[in-house]
Amino acid sequence: MTAKPPRLSSAIRAKLHAARVARLTTLDDHHRPHLVPICFVLVGNVFYSGIDRKPKRVDARKLARVKNVENTPQVALLVDHYEEDWAVLWYILVRGEAALVSSPAEHKRALRSLRAKYPQYRGEMLPDDAPILRIAPTRITAWGNI
Amino acid sequence: MTAKPPRLSSAIRAKLHAARVARLTTLDDHHRPHLVPICFVLVGNVFYSGIDRKPKRVDARKLARVKNVENTPQVALLVDHYEEDWAVLWYILVRGEAALVSSPAEHKRALRSLRAKYPQYRGEMLPDDAPILRIAPTRITAWGNI
Repeated sequence: MTAKPPRLSSAIRAKLHAARVARLTTLDDHHRPHLVPICFVLVGNVFYSGIDRKPKRVDARKLARVKNVENTPQVALLVDHYEEDWAVLWYILVRGEAALVSSPAEHKRALRSLRAKYPQYRGEMLPDDAPILRIAPTRITAWGNI
Repeated sequence: MTAKPPRLSSAIRAKLHAARVARLTTLDDHHRPHLVPICFVLVGNVFYSGIDRKPKRVDARKLARVKNVENTPQVALLVDHYEEDWAVLWYILVRGEAALVSSPAEHKRALRSLRAKYPQYRGEMLPDDAPILRIAPTRITAWGNI
């Protein structure tokens, strides 16, 4: 782990702000990868993702990604662009550490940022007490047309 | 690990055949996740992904995903659909084991299938001797509008 978070260029920051979906890898307690699409928002140098009310089989706090980061904080987050013209592909790979947000002030700020980015979150989809994951980057790799 | 590969429903199979991009998680030698977008093809119950000539910093066989599966075969592959209407979201999470294809007959078949799916591979983008990853599912989870 680096003590200081990696710097994000303005080009990378613009792509991350514009992206509507990312993919998040967490590790289960056998160190096997689990991978899901997530909605997220970048605030400063930190990513937030809410455990929202899209249908889930289990309670939010028993969700695989939540249990996984409680045991193993190492995660990978990918934001990318695909189209058939392969000259314009790009991706941004964020490796870092994830945890549930516990500070009420940080939770409130993250919730507000998620609702500002996603109109879908302004209704009941993201309740005020929704668990929120914070992903703090330790390493960022950018590839392709950025 | 299950001895028999999981069955794919025809609805899941149709989504996997139509998908143009997937995301692949491999694990580095410190068991930290690495995550990239990949092109892939489903042949029977097995996924293939070529190490193609999209620009890379290193030689194909030194690529992170290749080195990683040689050390740790456990991978996760995600195919998903995002749009702003969250009622129609879906994803298919494939957990399984990956290895480089070594049999010449299997390599030839995989190459042919990749070129049939992606016109981009009919030129020099995927040479005849390109390394190809085989991903054999051990568990498949489908979520959402499938």
